[in-house]
Amino acid sequence: MSKEITSRSTDYSQWYNDLVIKGDLADYSAVRGCMVIRPYGFGLWENMRDALDKMFKDTGHVNAYFPLFIPKSFLSREAAHVEGFAKECAVVTHYRLKKNPDGDGVVVDPEARLEEELIVRPTSETIIWNTYKTWIQSYRDLPLLINQWANVVRWEMRTRLFLRTAEFLWQEGHTAHATREEAIEETTKMLDVYADFVENWMALPVIKGVKTASERFAGAEDTYCIEALMQDGKALQAGTSHFLGQNFAKAFDVTFADKNNTLDYVWASSWGVSTRLVGALVMAHSDDEGLVLPPRIAPLQVVIVPIYKGEEQKAELDKWARTLESELKAKQIRVKYDDSDNQRPGWKFAQYELKGVPVRVAVGARDIQNQTVELARRDTRGKSVVPMEGLAATISGLLDEIQEGMFRKALSFREQHITRVDHWDEFEKVLNEKGGFISAHWDGTAETEALIKEKTKATIRCIPLNNSPEAGKCVLTGKPSAQRVLFAIAY
Amino acid sequence: MSKEITSRSTDYSQWYNDLVIKGDLADYSAVRGCMVIRPYGFGLWENMRDALDKMFKDTGHVNAYFPLFIPKSFLSREAAHVEGFAKECAVVTHYRLKKNPDGDGVVVDPEARLEEELIVRPTSETIIWNTYKTWIQSYRDLPLLINQWANVVRWEMRTRLFLRTAEFLWQEGHTAHATREEAIEETTKMLDVYADFVENWMALPVIKGVKTASERFAGAEDTYCIEALMQDGKALQAGTSHFLGQNFAKAFDVTFADKNNTLDYVWASSWGVSTRLVGALVMAHSDDEGLVLPPRIAPLQVVIVPIYKGEEQKAELDKWARTLESELKAKQIRVKYDDSDNQRPGWKFAQYELKGVPVRVAVGARDIQNQTVELARRDTRGKSVVPMEGLAATISGLLDEIQEGMFRKALSFREQHITRVDHWDEFEKVLNEKGGFISAHWDGTAETEALIKEKTKATIRCIPLNNSPEAGKCVLTGKPSAQRVLFAIAY
Repeated sequence: MSKEITSRSTDYSQWYNDLVIKGDLADYSAVRGCMVIRPYGFGLWENMRDALDKMFKDTGHVNAYFPLFIPKSFLSREAAHVEGFAKECAVVTHYRLKKNPDGDGVVVDPEARLEEELIVRPTSETIIWNTYKTWIQSYRDLPLLINQWANVVRWEMRTRLFLRTAEFLWQEGHTAHATREEAIEETTKMLDVYADFVENWMALPVIKGVKTASERFAGAEDTYCIEALMQDGKALQAGTSHFLGQNFAKAFDVTFADKNNTLDYVWASSWGVSTRLVGALVMAHSDDEGLVLPPRIAPLQVVIVPIYKGEEQKAELDKWARTLESELKAKQIRVKYDDSDNQRPGWKFAQYELKGVPVRVAVGARDIQNQTVELARRDTRGKSVVPMEGLAATISGLLDEIQEGMFRKALSFREQHITRVDHWDEFEKVLNEKGGFISAHWDGTAETEALIKEKTKATIRCIPLNNSPEAGKCVLTGKPSAQRVLFAIAY
Repeated sequence: MSKEITSRSTDYSQWYNDLVIKGDLADYSAVRGCMVIRPYGFGLWENMRDALDKMFKDTGHVNAYFPLFIPKSFLSREAAHVEGFAKECAVVTHYRLKKNPDGDGVVVDPEARLEEELIVRPTSETIIWNTYKTWIQSYRDLPLLINQWANVVRWEMRTRLFLRTAEFLWQEGHTAHATREEAIEETTKMLDVYADFVENWMALPVIKGVKTASERFAGAEDTYCIEALMQDGKALQAGTSHFLGQNFAKAFDVTFADKNNTLDYVWASSWGVSTRLVGALVMAHSDDEGLVLPPRIAPLQVVIVPIYKGEEQKAELDKWARTLESELKAKQIRVKYDDSDNQRPGWKFAQYELKGVPVRVAVGARDIQNQTVELARRDTRGKSVVPMEGLAATISGLLDEIQEGMFRKALSFREQHITRVDHWDEFEKVLNEKGGFISAHWDGTAETEALIKEKTKATIRCIPLNNSPEAGKCVLTGKPSAQRVLFAIAY
């Protein structure tokens, strides 16, 4: 089984695709750039979505749903916004098909042309702020803390399963506030929620930072982000939270009366994470045998595989396994007893390794005699023989240990891949030979940023929020700089 | 507050719109035929979705996600299917906008025309069966029991909030089986799941039946349905489950090898319910004071309103109310203590009546002395004074009582509105004066069905599954008939 997977060292990109396809996470579809999320991959996304949704609700947010379509004219209202999204829009121009008068099939009915074209939402700021206009009159209506789970479409030319698809699933929070301070507080609070989720559920350490002007969301005053590191040394933006200032309020004329009945424009934030996180998860933790999934979000946390000869042994193992299964379920552990008879245990072992199931329990007739079983953990591929007594508790503890171990491993890798660099030749050398984040001084100009990108493909991933001020010289131009920023080649 | 709502007797249709808008369930949007589902309405849908999702999973189904877009040519593969959906499709023809060379804003870039147009899914049989082709080879791959929660678009000309919108949210199950019998069993099993949900969660009795050929889903061999009755005597189709035979397997060439390695086409079912159910819920239970929501799916089940003078009384009530709140939350009851100081208790009472909150607890300083409170139930608008002791248990019991009472009331109304009719003049009279379902003989021809629809707007809602055979004469033509069917004017 594992032999069918390209190794990371042979072709990292193909390894990734193999895992996504052969691990049953997703499949290509008949529509260019759109993927099918398979049940196993969707189960993973459901666990991520449910955990995030609870965190949003615990911080006072509610869900709602806004239209899929955006009138073309709405996009133009905010100048930077249309500039950012116009080039990758799916455009609905007609609302009817008719029989092909010249042959088979159906054709677009030219008489059913829309007066104004509709854009399939690439993001929903415009349609939402057009709605907020009718919901907000006074400070009493604020804050509005609304999130939506939705599909969005950006017509990317080069797509990759999960990481960059024409259609993807995401959540987008859109909040409205009476003051600049409150909107900024919300923006950073949600960044913290994202970091908490990615680190504690996905076992993936992130760096919180703020984007430079050229990497900002189209229409934002500031874009905050969390950046993660993949095993090939490339960075991946795992989530963003935008302080939108009054830009969309002005574009859609959304004002409110304060306590003194003075009118002002409303302040805004928006923030989102998407199915891209599934791609990050795969790239950060998996190995050449298959997926490695963190227990807290794995669709299946434990698999029990019986090893037996004959029906009598099978019956004994069944009884034992069903008991363990109920004990684990009582602890809210997602478990499967795989007693299917059409595959051998070795095949099953490889299959569940490929699928990244965190813990495997293998049990044979002799184990029942000895009152022990073999536990295999997916992350380290370590095995141990443990007593049957107290097994459910042992497994529960092991799942926690795996979750922590995966985070520590990823953190250690990340720490080893942040390199402080002060000279240009070293910058290029580190980028080419070691990869990862480069912490270097930058003169603060968009020109230098663009030049570095042109020379190396590296971009400024962020200015870390916890940065200490440090006087220095720009790694490219030698001009003065007040702090280091993080460069990397990114997905 | 309640005075702003049009009464049912004045204008039923306006009453419905008033409830949806003023009850904060949904709002019109800037896009023709598309609605915004507001947080309160979305909370209701979330509760419905979560309950259904659990029922699907408990019956062995898993979720997945398929593309929003369907290549135009896919629709034509199944003849009846394209006939049914071609006239109401949103069609994507371009993938880019550009600056308007002749003025402001953006225009569609004529150079970014798609080779093949994409249809925004009106339903997903075609894209899903095209995918199943790659997933199904052998009987070992069957059954496939997959569901998806998604948005779909049907370009309806006349739209109404929730009941008929261009975009709506729904779930669509798509299953694949080795035999005709298994596929039919799945079709009726899911009809039972829908009936169970609508009756036991939405408190709305339904009639299970099968559609006549002319009312069948485009591409189905048989369409099963559940039909509910609204307060104005019109019927509403609350869910459908289709036996698709081998139609889509043939259209997309999906075959499987059985145990003897013989190839056959795969058998299919599909089934769906949508946000339309929210409209049914509103129309079935609500009254002239506002929404009446069944406790099991109400976003908020209990509201506590304090009545006080001065901070000292307030402090005492706060303490008591917070204790009750925690006791109710411990019982998984969704409760809110509304101690906001910007509105009077009477205004709050009216507001929560409008929102359909099942139970209201009003508590004042004297109540604390007497150790009693006033409970008001929304469904009957009955009030009672009950002891504070054991109040959480009392409220929990009352919620159950309301849930059952709402179902019984709707069932009684429905039973009173099924009229057996044997003569044509009576048919027209009952339809015009009483409404509801008419149980009548029909000669089984599409011509008669069409003629009755033309004369009266009534359609055959279904042939009930529990029908007893009964020889009779068609109510219109007098030709022989073997059973009664249910007619009604429908939403």
